[in-house]
Amino acid sequence: MPASQIVGTAVRRIDGQPKVTGQIRFGADLPIPGLLYCRLVPSPYAHARIVKIDASAALALPGVYAVIGGEELDLPGLNPASRPKMPLARGEVFFRGQPVAAVLAESDALAEDAAALVNVEYEPLPVIPNAAAALAPDAPVVRPLPKSAEDGEAAAHATVSVAEEPKEQQGPNVSDTVHLKRGNVEQGFAEADVIVERTYRTAMVHQSYLEPRVVTAAPDPLSGGVTVWTATQGVFYCRTEIAQALGLPEHEVKVVPTTVGGGFGAKICVMEPLVAALARQVQRPVRLVYTRSDEFLNPTPAPPATISVKLGAKRDGTFTALQARVLFDAGSFPGAPMAISSLLLGSCYKVPNLDIQGQEVLSHKPGPGAYRAPGSVQASFAIESTVEQVARQLGMDPVELRLKNCVDQGDPQASGDRWGVIGLRACLEALRDHPAYRAAKQPGEGRGVAVGAWPGGLEPANAICRLDRDGKLTVQVGAVDISGTSTTLAMIAAETFGLPLEDVKMVHADSDTAPNSGMAGGSKITYTVGEAVRRAAEEARLQLLRIAADKLEVSPDDLVLADGRVHVRGAPDRGLAVKELARLSLEFGSKYEPVYGRGATATAERAPGFAVHLAKVRVDPDTGHVQVTDYVAVQDVGKAINPPEVEGQIRGGVTQGLGWALFEQMRYDEQGQLLTGTFADYALPLAIDVPNITPVIVEVPAPRGPFGARGVGEPPVVPPAAAVANAVEDAIGARITDLPITSEKVLRALGRL
Amino acid sequence: MPASQIVGTAVRRIDGQPKVTGQIRFGADLPIPGLLYCRLVPSPYAHARIVKIDASAALALPGVYAVIGGEELDLPGLNPASRPKMPLARGEVFFRGQPVAAVLAESDALAEDAAALVNVEYEPLPVIPNAAAALAPDAPVVRPLPKSAEDGEAAAHATVSVAEEPKEQQGPNVSDTVHLKRGNVEQGFAEADVIVERTYRTAMVHQSYLEPRVVTAAPDPLSGGVTVWTATQGVFYCRTEIAQALGLPEHEVKVVPTTVGGGFGAKICVMEPLVAALARQVQRPVRLVYTRSDEFLNPTPAPPATISVKLGAKRDGTFTALQARVLFDAGSFPGAPMAISSLLLGSCYKVPNLDIQGQEVLSHKPGPGAYRAPGSVQASFAIESTVEQVARQLGMDPVELRLKNCVDQGDPQASGDRWGVIGLRACLEALRDHPAYRAAKQPGEGRGVAVGAWPGGLEPANAICRLDRDGKLTVQVGAVDISGTSTTLAMIAAETFGLPLEDVKMVHADSDTAPNSGMAGGSKITYTVGEAVRRAAEEARLQLLRIAADKLEVSPDDLVLADGRVHVRGAPDRGLAVKELARLSLEFGSKYEPVYGRGATATAERAPGFAVHLAKVRVDPDTGHVQVTDYVAVQDVGKAINPPEVEGQIRGGVTQGLGWALFEQMRYDEQGQLLTGTFADYALPLAIDVPNITPVIVEVPAPRGPFGARGVGEPPVVPPAAAVANAVEDAIGARITDLPITSEKVLRALGRL
Repeated sequence: MPASQIVGTAVRRIDGQPKVTGQIRFGADLPIPGLLYCRLVPSPYAHARIVKIDASAALALPGVYAVIGGEELDLPGLNPASRPKMPLARGEVFFRGQPVAAVLAESDALAEDAAALVNVEYEPLPVIPNAAAALAPDAPVVRPLPKSAEDGEAAAHATVSVAEEPKEQQGPNVSDTVHLKRGNVEQGFAEADVIVERTYRTAMVHQSYLEPRVVTAAPDPLSGGVTVWTATQGVFYCRTEIAQALGLPEHEVKVVPTTVGGGFGAKICVMEPLVAALARQVQRPVRLVYTRSDEFLNPTPAPPATISVKLGAKRDGTFTALQARVLFDAGSFPGAPMAISSLLLGSCYKVPNLDIQGQEVLSHKPGPGAYRAPGSVQASFAIESTVEQVARQLGMDPVELRLKNCVDQGDPQASGDRWGVIGLRACLEALRDHPAYRAAKQPGEGRGVAVGAWPGGLEPANAICRLDRDGKLTVQVGAVDISGTSTTLAMIAAETFGLPLEDVKMVHADSDTAPNSGMAGGSKITYTVGEAVRRAAEEARLQLLRIAADKLEVSPDDLVLADGRVHVRGAPDRGLAVKELARLSLEFGSKYEPVYGRGATATAERAPGFAVHLAKVRVDPDTGHVQVTDYVAVQDVGKAINPPEVEGQIRGGVTQGLGWALFEQMRYDEQGQLLTGTFADYALPLAIDVPNITPVIVEVPAPRGPFGARGVGEPPVVPPAAAVANAVEDAIGARITDLPITSEKVLRALGRL
Repeated sequence: MPASQIVGTAVRRIDGQPKVTGQIRFGADLPIPGLLYCRLVPSPYAHARIVKIDASAALALPGVYAVIGGEELDLPGLNPASRPKMPLARGEVFFRGQPVAAVLAESDALAEDAAALVNVEYEPLPVIPNAAAALAPDAPVVRPLPKSAEDGEAAAHATVSVAEEPKEQQGPNVSDTVHLKRGNVEQGFAEADVIVERTYRTAMVHQSYLEPRVVTAAPDPLSGGVTVWTATQGVFYCRTEIAQALGLPEHEVKVVPTTVGGGFGAKICVMEPLVAALARQVQRPVRLVYTRSDEFLNPTPAPPATISVKLGAKRDGTFTALQARVLFDAGSFPGAPMAISSLLLGSCYKVPNLDIQGQEVLSHKPGPGAYRAPGSVQASFAIESTVEQVARQLGMDPVELRLKNCVDQGDPQASGDRWGVIGLRACLEALRDHPAYRAAKQPGEGRGVAVGAWPGGLEPANAICRLDRDGKLTVQVGAVDISGTSTTLAMIAAETFGLPLEDVKMVHADSDTAPNSGMAGGSKITYTVGEAVRRAAEEARLQLLRIAADKLEVSPDDLVLADGRVHVRGAPDRGLAVKELARLSLEFGSKYEPVYGRGATATAERAPGFAVHLAKVRVDPDTGHVQVTDYVAVQDVGKAINPPEVEGQIRGGVTQGLGWALFEQMRYDEQGQLLTGTFADYALPLAIDVPNITPVIVEVPAPRGPFGARGVGEPPVVPPAAAVANAVEDAIGARITDLPITSEKVLRALGRL
């Protein structure tokens, strides 16, 4: 194989220019004639019985078309366990902001006015605001537990196969449990010289994408089906959800993906079935655009977690036992990433004795969604805070302690499954040897290290590479681009086929015409669809070489494809342009089949991604303000196909992780009322809060990844919370166990409040 | 292979119900916000210099956006030899109705009004109204002959490889020639006992589809390219034409096919580049909808032909020599099907000595387009009229005479190419044995027989069969449906894969997402795309069986797929539903590749289609009215995949052929003014004119056709003109050599006028 011409070089994102110049069209820009605009009527209570919905005042406004409550919505596949399949409350509301009715009007402003005029009479009911209250011995039932919860969206990111514990006697509000066990923890702790035990809490965090959710649906009068335009991360997943909710064959649902203005896991499928059902019910196109307020009131956030960890180690640093209790507060819909969080918590280190129990509990808050590396930030914050404290107690270098215990290929995860080819040790070594780590600590500086793991998603995929008459290659995929993968896929195709990148056109097709693909989630698009594209391009290349071989009367093996031309090896003059060969295969009566490569992938072998981060902080003792001063993010990406894009993902992930560490929290009061409903209350990191971030790329090739690539998007968001907490303890000598690490908490830890 | 479950059974067209209930959407129904409506300003002269275009009055109307003349149109790929690439006249007009300017306005009515206000000053020039005038020794030049005419649209139907004759000394208006020669015709005629020599004329005929042309185009502000919605018969052909005309890479042109409301060859690509260029020039979406008047003034008709034939035969009926002169009047743009007409004229019979000379001549009329079996009706009318006269002179049964001379597999065509597997003899025998032919002639009845040939089109194609999560099969093709092929393709996929027809969904994709396909023309969709679909379904089936084999732990060879279920042969209980297997291949982390079959075809082996028709007529000696009283249409279709659809094609083709025979003609006066500009003047056959038509299906399998199928659409239009003319001679004892056979001509032949 010749040296890479394109893969591994720095390429500008093909969507960069139109995005930064504002030319790209998003779902809300899509012109659909005859639209009805939808606004939702949110519940003002976190828990209440709906006594009556009086829409008369709203309907009296000229231009208001309909007001449809949950009971009136025609949704044959209604499923109370599923947010998308019960998009409007029926009889009872379970969280503040839960939509109770949809208003349809001829303009968005009218719909907004009308929504305010819908008069809903409620009978307030007792509110269980959080997991602790839900687990109280005499706690009332949050809601009747749905009998069979479906796989949540988190499952699309990385399914976990672990035994479920019987839920009996765990109380009426426990919706899911898991128990991971190995060896004998009592014995393990008995062998330990040092034991650290603590409880950690992470906040409810919003994905905070730039583009609010937007869904447009139009009924198809011919099929009786529906077309849905949406910024979904998963075209086929969304189609299945809509079809199930509407009781339609999948063939009668067409999902057309629109540009995703930030997703981070939240834009998979939530309101799509509602809008599709409304459009069919009123037989007109309907559009729902969330306001930022809707985004906060009716979100699918990362759920809050409470994790207790007990870790024992011998004097030489060898871990002897790990015990943990992982509790996720799922709000009013099950589907929190409790199982994967429990798994990851116990899978990064060799521990002979292990006992991890996970619980998912319901409360009167919005249900959870996927959030970049679902469950992993919570796990990393708990275990990596604990490991750092063990290092401190042992007086060991924190990287050396981790190197002593870190898992390698063949080691068991908490579930007993064995790790494949992984780069955790390589990442730890890279940080150990990095100048920023070796540099002497400055006065007042605190340093923290943390590891983040992401198992990597899997989903079978197909891709097509079609050579067109003008000699250009059209690459068709069913995956959408939420993180620059479109450019990466184009690079893979160009490199493999042998054309310049500008001769490759990416097409992200709709559900009618697209090759199968999993959703953009779980850091799996490059790993799965990328490999399908590579194989499709390889097949297309071989098809082209066979045509050229026939024309040039040589064996395909004796041909070279380079610079848009096929020529005989050693005889550059004996050749044909790709364009000419394309034309030959597409002309009337051609004896050559058109060049049309299909590539497929299906593998049960994951490509786990590990990140090891170093945070340096300064803490102002007067204000409690934590300033991150420097940051190094080491990550095994298998192969950096487009290095600047990989670095961009790492910088973005770290920045979001700093949000978890220092700023972001959706807070609710005891009555389940949201206290942080705007960006004035919900703090995101600003430019001034983001330090210099140095990405360090490690490349341990994934055996089944295209060019060895692994998923890149998820790992970098995982370690920052723990790394910053560890650095803060290093700086102030006190451990903060609650995220985010606000000035207030720092001052409390310093005894100043 | 098990017996067919679906192929060969009678299936309702999947587009039938929405079409007959008026629910289908056509291009003119497509809602595109911000449209500008386009109307064209037609030339009132057949030949004139454009002195000045004064648009001031038009532009003064509020809502008129622009008036763009030929010189102002931004068309980098302008080509005066090509109608689509010179859609507006520049400097000079060459035919009555040629567009000289495009008016763009905010409504169609405004555009119409404004077009009437555009004041064009012309300087009339001498008009050459027809081929005879163009070939006169002192004829002026119709227009400077384009240097290199491109392949016309007829080439897409069936390319002909024949030597071209030098055009020198044939006069300034001869745009193309052909010469087919074998043996020595003088010697052949010397050996003949009977010689018939005559000249035949066919009219200019309009395709007369129900839906007028409609094209919508919108600029893409991101790529600088353009999206074009059009009822084209050829998505990729049209894309290439637009890209070339606009000077764009093909990747920047997206062609979205809309439902074709009748095409018959005319809806390939004519005004698409104009509308696309206008949309880019004004940076707004533009729509052009033809009125019926536009259809007549600016058509792409079947061009008129004058064909002289001299045929010699021995007393026993053996043909000894065939000489012919084929003259096509192409109007002002070259591209008449002269070459294929010359070829077909000399290819249906064994004739040892042959000399056919063809000429294409320009005149001041609209340029030609493709028309169902381009060139073949003209050839059949001439040669089959002649053969019938030879039979009469010899006193031989006309079918027996044809059986004596007809070509079989391996016989040479006029070009010297050999025929492959053909069914001409089988069709003749089927007619000979048919009760309608054997029945005694009624008093006053005239009977005529004629043969029609169509070589069959070829174009490489791909297709995709994608198995979806609900166990249904999505079939993706780049071909559009102009004749019911969509149902046929679905049947092929269902039969091959092993699912009921209702579990197959057809998707006719746009140029960005479609598998490669030739245009719907030349009767090649079932033959080429159908075979690609069959192979794709077969590949998908094998993929599915491999998954089932793995799950059931047996060999794929031991599996049976039937009724939506795969089971072990002989053990019906050991099985899995297709739906379950589909789900297995599409779930997260599946080890199975999604079922996604690709099928490709490319062959140089045509599947020629032959038709043998019998017409029975009565002629009213007082009015000259010809009434067709009965009609038998025998046709070799290889394999009738959907018999009622095949019969529908045959009935439709015969009806159109009766239009050629008796009614249809676009007439121009000596100044090139159209005399038949409405359906009141241009006569189409009415229900009362159409007799009982008995289709007789002959099945001589095409070696490379799916299930043996050949193209069906074109052959049935070919013989009616000759069959009716032969029947009329049989009835009245006089030969009419000019089409259409109007009452006036009959009365003249009877000496009554």
